[in-house]
Amino acid sequence: MSATIAVLGGTGPEGFGLARRWVQAGETVIIGSRDAKRAQDTAAKIKAAVGASARVSGEENIAACAAATLLVLTIPFEGHAALLKQIKPALRSGSILVDTTVPLAASVGGRATRTLGVWQGSAAQETAELAPQGVPVVAAFHNVSADLLNAVDPVECDVVVCSDDPQAGQTVRLLAAKIPGVRAIDGGKLENARIVEQITALLIGLNIRHKGHSGIRITGLPAAAYGG
Amino acid sequence: MSATIAVLGGTGPEGFGLARRWVQAGETVIIGSRDAKRAQDTAAKIKAAVGASARVSGEENIAACAAATLLVLTIPFEGHAALLKQIKPALRSGSILVDTTVPLAASVGGRATRTLGVWQGSAAQETAELAPQGVPVVAAFHNVSADLLNAVDPVECDVVVCSDDPQAGQTVRLLAAKIPGVRAIDGGKLENARIVEQITALLIGLNIRHKGHSGIRITGLPAAAYGG
Repeated sequence: MSATIAVLGGTGPEGFGLARRWVQAGETVIIGSRDAKRAQDTAAKIKAAVGASARVSGEENIAACAAATLLVLTIPFEGHAALLKQIKPALRSGSILVDTTVPLAASVGGRATRTLGVWQGSAAQETAELAPQGVPVVAAFHNVSADLLNAVDPVECDVVVCSDDPQAGQTVRLLAAKIPGVRAIDGGKLENARIVEQITALLIGLNIRHKGHSGIRITGLPAAAYGG
Repeated sequence: MSATIAVLGGTGPEGFGLARRWVQAGETVIIGSRDAKRAQDTAAKIKAAVGASARVSGEENIAACAAATLLVLTIPFEGHAALLKQIKPALRSGSILVDTTVPLAASVGGRATRTLGVWQGSAAQETAELAPQGVPVVAAFHNVSADLLNAVDPVECDVVVCSDDPQAGQTVRLLAAKIPGVRAIDGGKLENARIVEQITALLIGLNIRHKGHSGIRITGLPAAAYGG
């Protein structure tokens, strides 16, 4: 993959885990954060973990967006709309906006096992409303446990990818498949993100109840469906 | 399991598949239908498939309810509330109401890949509101493909079981585990059914897109979580 990936919110556990996995796979990643210094510290941590060949740097969010064409939002829902409005001027036509956000009720002081109703149907659809024309939105990675991303084993989880732009969806499925263990599945239109986002709240409940790091596998599809 | 199981809507593909699997496992099942004759014909079909030892009969829905203590609703959402009101007088305290219903938009002429918003949060919570006191509601089996139930192979799908009554939930997890291949997982409170129900619409979309009979497996939990 030749595109540079900016992971916005890459100093948090989900963003850090995704960024580290992609850097390990040889991708070029920019960690984005409100605080450039924290982003650089996080990049240094990834470099220390992956080795000297690692292509990773840290930037303030807007600078990160300006330098990348694959932008991955990994911030909590409470900062979601505000960040999108802030980065909008830096989004270039042809860039892809990957949204991993789950509208957990924890965002407003509720439980992480419940979700908020989002007017547009899902966080990803809210993103699509806020994104400029020419910047397709792809929903993905919601169900992948940050703990598993940050461990060393392959990740036992499928990634259901939803987008109204088939080509952008395919690009993100290829990106997902770079994480060992992950199988990327075309989940159809962006509106289906509302279900994929909800699944995360169910998995968080299972983690609490059964003390695990749960994920999902989709069974029963022909082999080609798991091929990216 | 000593309880007699009434499968209401047992003449449809999901109900038929569940009933046949349970009869195969040695359970006593009554097929319930609006039409006693159709219920008896369906029971005869199961008997022919399973063999002479099969304990299965057919009854009109209310008679089926009166003769069983485990009542499994497998009717489409459009008939859900009406059936509940109709059978309510036949429900005895101590019986368990198992709801498999998914509020698909197909119920009102929409798509089977979308769901309707249910005021109570989910079809299962609507059921809980309509059920008499002393009859716990358990949500389960939403994600199990009727096609796979009606085939001969083990069913490659986990069943997430949600209930506000832990004992009723456990009874239903044991019932689920009688289907070869199925692992039953405690999904917590009934309110979580709203997510499990939605997953079915996602799986239907995957089936259409990829031409399969999809299901889900939950990964990453300790072995005890899959034990019923």
